[in-house]
Amino acid sequence: MTVLEQTVAAIRPADPVALAAARAHQDSLTKPRGALGVLEEVAVRLAGAAAVSPPPLPVPAALAIFAADHGVHAQGVSPWPQEVTVQMVANFLAGGAVANAIAAQIGASVTVVDVGVAADLPPAPGLTVSKVAYGTADLSCGPAMTARQVVAALETGIEVARRLVDQGARCLVTGDMGIANTTASAALICAFTGLDAAGVTGRGTGIDDETLSRKIEVVRRALRVNGLDGGVENGSETPERARAATGGAVPALETLAAVGGLEHAAIAGFILGGAALRVPVILDGVIAGSAALAAAALAPGVVDHCVAGHRSAEPGHGAALDHLGLRPLVDLELRLGEGSGGLLAHPLVCAAVRVMHEVATFDSAGVTDKEA
Amino acid sequence: MTVLEQTVAAIRPADPVALAAARAHQDSLTKPRGALGVLEEVAVRLAGAAAVSPPPLPVPAALAIFAADHGVHAQGVSPWPQEVTVQMVANFLAGGAVANAIAAQIGASVTVVDVGVAADLPPAPGLTVSKVAYGTADLSCGPAMTARQVVAALETGIEVARRLVDQGARCLVTGDMGIANTTASAALICAFTGLDAAGVTGRGTGIDDETLSRKIEVVRRALRVNGLDGGVENGSETPERARAATGGAVPALETLAAVGGLEHAAIAGFILGGAALRVPVILDGVIAGSAALAAAALAPGVVDHCVAGHRSAEPGHGAALDHLGLRPLVDLELRLGEGSGGLLAHPLVCAAVRVMHEVATFDSAGVTDKEA
Repeated sequence: MTVLEQTVAAIRPADPVALAAARAHQDSLTKPRGALGVLEEVAVRLAGAAAVSPPPLPVPAALAIFAADHGVHAQGVSPWPQEVTVQMVANFLAGGAVANAIAAQIGASVTVVDVGVAADLPPAPGLTVSKVAYGTADLSCGPAMTARQVVAALETGIEVARRLVDQGARCLVTGDMGIANTTASAALICAFTGLDAAGVTGRGTGIDDETLSRKIEVVRRALRVNGLDGGVENGSETPERARAATGGAVPALETLAAVGGLEHAAIAGFILGGAALRVPVILDGVIAGSAALAAAALAPGVVDHCVAGHRSAEPGHGAALDHLGLRPLVDLELRLGEGSGGLLAHPLVCAAVRVMHEVATFDSAGVTDKEA
Repeated sequence: MTVLEQTVAAIRPADPVALAAARAHQDSLTKPRGALGVLEEVAVRLAGAAAVSPPPLPVPAALAIFAADHGVHAQGVSPWPQEVTVQMVANFLAGGAVANAIAAQIGASVTVVDVGVAADLPPAPGLTVSKVAYGTADLSCGPAMTARQVVAALETGIEVARRLVDQGARCLVTGDMGIANTTASAALICAFTGLDAAGVTGRGTGIDDETLSRKIEVVRRALRVNGLDGGVENGSETPERARAATGGAVPALETLAAVGGLEHAAIAGFILGGAALRVPVILDGVIAGSAALAAAALAPGVVDHCVAGHRSAEPGHGAALDHLGLRPLVDLELRLGEGSGGLLAHPLVCAAVRVMHEVATFDSAGVTDKEA
């Protein structure tokens, strides 16, 4: 078996015994039942993922920022020049980016992975060079990647997850850098959910109305030229309807190759790699959300190992999370990427788990239970 | 001047120079402008509150849990026996409550203040005894407190804030414990916002439909017997209309005395005390929100020093935050109290401020600015 096949085969869905034990434990703690709201469900989910209740504390966390460039940048979908990808990689490595500040705040390590930046990067501490290509091809003209490139990028993500867990990480956080990568994300979300481009394509890091209209058209064209719009020629039929007619199955690797980015594929692998080792993965924003759709299409059980760190301002992100059945923890109109939203969620996840370990029960604390 | 008068006189609204400097600094950092969403505004607000940009890191944080009992408990508004207040104080002091677990997670100290528990508590490390009364009188039969009691509780809160800041705290987090205290909170929110009881009274830690109906009636009766419903006899006129007719002014101390709790008054003082020292205060849930309405009525500038930690499941909390103009950071259907939601927000506030201190500028990092 290949590394990818081994990884997919190793992924188990949530353990029902641990889920039940975690729910019962929550109800015994000195707090009104359900009073920790969404955090109770997070702790229960992590118990299911780890197959033990209470689940291990997700500490320390490790952020991996997968960086790559995009051929579709040539279509004018971003106001930022492509060279900013390289410049921001240097900023991450120098410790000067937002992701570094938030990682320092929560005690997470930062690893930068060049999986497809369109320039050669000088070696540096903290940089892993696993360049699959100098950026993708333009997804609006044909497939962004070859089948071989997709698998190489996925396996890069798997290897990074394995290495970080081997080094002690007990929680993985996804990060990304790649000018124009919200365009690929929107196309992936359309392909995996069947939604129309207009509803899921957003302003990314900040574009004007004219650029947004162009971006939506680019996404539609990408789906059309890659045969991912269900072969619908007539605008009156939505991709969703067309997919419903064909049973809704979307081939994951082909879809990633057609309209994904190298960092999307690597992040999908990173998620699969963490899940295979039963280490929870906190998803950052829309890039991670679209990558998680691909990972879930390859191995549905992977979703039980994911926590949605936040909901970004990008409209497609909410659609991706809904499709995955994940509820975001932080919802503060962030639209930065880099892993920032995933990192911000980490203390919330830690608190949810810590409660399971440290809070007294009604019996042990001698507190009267209203239901008793 | 009294301690309360001194404190109110010392409170300054946000400094406009620091606000402007903080906004300009945010726009120079290596991220798309506005990409950190609500967190950018939090950092800017703290700069205004501290009158310096970037603002100091809000570390370490100190949680104060103000505990008290409520005469209105006799009306059957809670399924929990009143003795749970004492039992939970013991749980806090033993380190077994949810607030302890989350405080440990974020490195915050925990102080428990008996401002009005209906029993004598044995001395213990971490317990401050400043008992103003053995619980309030039943607010649905007349004023819950005397004018003297309200001031004593407010000044207890001020003294606790001063002491914690003196001991090194650079961020204060409000906490509360008091069976039946969401009833007093609902009455305060009605009185300060003019909203009807049905819209702001919730299920607290978990009550059935019948108890909720009774609780709403108790809140309405409390407002009526204390003359806080604008003297409206006829149900067709809302308190809001009646207040509008009288100019909307609500006397803060009288309102607190009429329908507040001893912990509400103490938390209002705690907020005022932090603001007077220019130390930010993270508000927990509906108890803190209703106390903040009282604090803001005493000193409007206090709001600039507050951060809304979260929005609880209690409907009155959102109404209180809207009235204060505060946007909550965490929104996860928590309904626990104790300071849990405020503590959970602390890492988000730290991250927002840390970005201001540590992130490189476009110039310093050599990153191309799209607007440049």
